Amino acid sequence: MTLPFTLLITPLAADAPDDGSWFAGTFTEVDASEPALRVSELSTQRGDGVFETLAVVNGHAQEVQPHLARLARSAEICDLPAPNLAQWSAAVSTAVQAIPDHGELAIKLVLSRGVENGPSPTAWLHASAARDFGPVRQSGVRVVTLDRGYDRGVAERAPWLLLGAKTLSYAVNMAALREAHRRGADDTIFVSSDGYVMEGPTSSVIIRHGDMFSTPAPSGAILHGTTQTSLFEYLERHGHAVSYRDISVEELRNADAAWLVSSVRLAVAITELDGAQVPVDAPLTQLFTEYLLSPRD
Amino acid sequence: MTLPFTLLITPLAADAPDDGSWFAGTFTEVDASEPALRVSELSTQRGDGVFETLAVVNGHAQEVQPHLARLARSAEICDLPAPNLAQWSAAVSTAVQAIPDHGELAIKLVLSRGVENGPSPTAWLHASAARDFGPVRQSGVRVVTLDRGYDRGVAERAPWLLLGAKTLSYAVNMAALREAHRRGADDTIFVSSDGYVMEGPTSSVIIRHGDMFSTPAPSGAILHGTTQTSLFEYLERHGHAVSYRDISVEELRNADAAWLVSSVRLAVAITELDGAQVPVDAPLTQLFTEYLLSPRD
Repeated sequence: MTLPFTLLITPLAADAPDDGSWFAGTFTEVDASEPALRVSELSTQRGDGVFETLAVVNGHAQEVQPHLARLARSAEICDLPAPNLAQWSAAVSTAVQAIPDHGELAIKLVLSRGVENGPSPTAWLHASAARDFGPVRQSGVRVVTLDRGYDRGVAERAPWLLLGAKTLSYAVNMAALREAHRRGADDTIFVSSDGYVMEGPTSSVIIRHGDMFSTPAPSGAILHGTTQTSLFEYLERHGHAVSYRDISVEELRNADAAWLVSSVRLAVAITELDGAQVPVDAPLTQLFTEYLLSPRD
Repeated sequence: MTLPFTLLITPLAADAPDDGSWFAGTFTEVDASEPALRVSELSTQRGDGVFETLAVVNGHAQEVQPHLARLARSAEICDLPAPNLAQWSAAVSTAVQAIPDHGELAIKLVLSRGVENGPSPTAWLHASAARDFGPVRQSGVRVVTLDRGYDRGVAERAPWLLLGAKTLSYAVNMAALREAHRRGADDTIFVSSDGYVMEGPTSSVIIRHGDMFSTPAPSGAILHGTTQTSLFEYLERHGHAVSYRDISVEELRNADAAWLVSSVRLAVAITELDGAQVPVDAPLTQLFTEYLLSPRD
C-alpha cells in the first residue's frame, strides 16, 4: 500500500453512534496528489481549524485516545463543533489498515471550520512516511531561545489567543524555526516575555535536575504535550519524581539534561542552548526512544 | 459573468518580464465549488502564507498597487519568494474583466508557501460579492477592547512573530471576533498588554480629537492599513492634521469620534466602546464612505 494515504471525513455530530457501516461511509479516500480542498476553505484562508499529528510505529498508532482528547479540547477552545471521537478513531483504524505495517509513519488529523459560510466543518486524515529521525535522536539538537512575546499569565487572561489549542495558525511557529536555522541552530524554545520556558514550536520541553524531571505547567500559555505526558507516566512508573511548574530560563540553562519531545520525532536531547553546551544524558535518551517506539495507547 | 471567480496562479520570479502572453498563460480559472488545493498545502496545514483583500467598486479595483506592495512586504517578512507584482497586477486585471462591473466585490489574493516539500509557492485569486455593508456604514459598530497579549515593542524585538505581515494564520483574529459577539458587540480593537491601541482583527483604527486625526504608529506591532493610509491622504488634501503615534486606550475612550477602517467594509463609526457611548461624526463618516467608494489607485 502506498503513501501518502488521505481520507476525507464527513464529520458527524459528537454523539452520532456507529451502526456498523455508518462511519466507513463517511470516509472517502482521495489521491493526495490531486486537489481535495476548495479555495474558500477557512483552514487555508485563515488557518482556522485544529489538528493533531500522531505516530504509527510498526503498524501501531500511538496514543490515539490522548491525541483525540486534545483534538476535542482544541475544538472546544476554538468554538468548533465537538468532534465525534469514535468516528475519528475509526478513521485512524482505517488508515492503519491501509498503510504499511512497518517503519515509522505520521498521521495528521485536521478539523477545519469548513468552507466560508458553509454548513459544517471539513475534516481529513493524511498519513505519510515520517522523516528519518534516527540521526537526530542520536545527535540531539542545538536550540536557541526565542521570545514568544506573551507573559505567562496571558492564557487565563485572554482565552481568545487560543494558546491551549493546537490550531492550524502555525505561521509563527514556522517563522521561529526559520529564525533558529538562521542562527545556526536546529530548533527553538519559546520563552515568555517574563522569562519563563514555554515550549518548542512543535514540541514540549522536559528538563532534569538530579532525579527530578520537570516540564512547564500546562496553564502557562502552552499546549499540553501528549508525548511529554506519556514520558512522565513512564518516569513515574520507574520511580522518578516529575513536576509541572514554572521553569525560568535560568533553570533551563542549568539543567543536568534537557529534551524536546514530540509525537513523531520523539525525545531528542538538547546539546546546546543559545551557543552554550548542555549536558547530554545519552543512556536516558536511549531509554526514552525505546519506550516511545514501543506500542503505547 | 458569475461569482465567485477563481484564478489559480503559477507564481513567476519577481523579475520575470511579460512577453505579452506569458502572464495570461500562468492563470487558470477554476470552479470555486470544486476542489483546487491539495491537503498538503501549507496554507491549510499551517496557515503558512500571506494574503490581501481588496475591493472592486463598479468595476474599479481599489488601490491595487498599495495592496500589492503590502503583499510583497508580507512575503518578505515571511521569507517567501518575492511576488512578481506585474503578474499579480495582471491577475487582478483579468479578474476585473471577468466579474461584474457594478456593485461592490472583494478580491482576495493568496500567496501560500505551497505544498509540503514542494518546489514553489501556491497562489490564487478569489473574487466574490461583498457582503452588504450599507447598513453598518450607516449604523456603525459597537466595539469591545481585547488584550492582544503583546506589548508595544514586541514587533521590533521579536520579528519571528510576523506582526507586520498579513499572514493566513488568522485563527486568533477570528476568535477575537467571536468573543466580541459573545459580549454583545460587533467588533473588537486589540490593545497591547501595556495599554495601547493596536488594530481590529480585520481593520485599522482612526480617532479624531478636535481637528487632529490619529492612528497607531505602524511600528506598534500592527499592520500598515491601506485604507487608513488612503483616508489620511484624503484628510491631508483637505487641510486636516494627521498623526501616527502611540494611542493609549484612555485616548481612544475620550475621542471625539473613532472609526474602524478596512478595504471592503470601508469606514464604520464606532458607536460604543466597552459599553460606553462614543460620539459619532455622521457627516464625516458619510464623506469617508463617499471618498472610499470613489475610484482610487
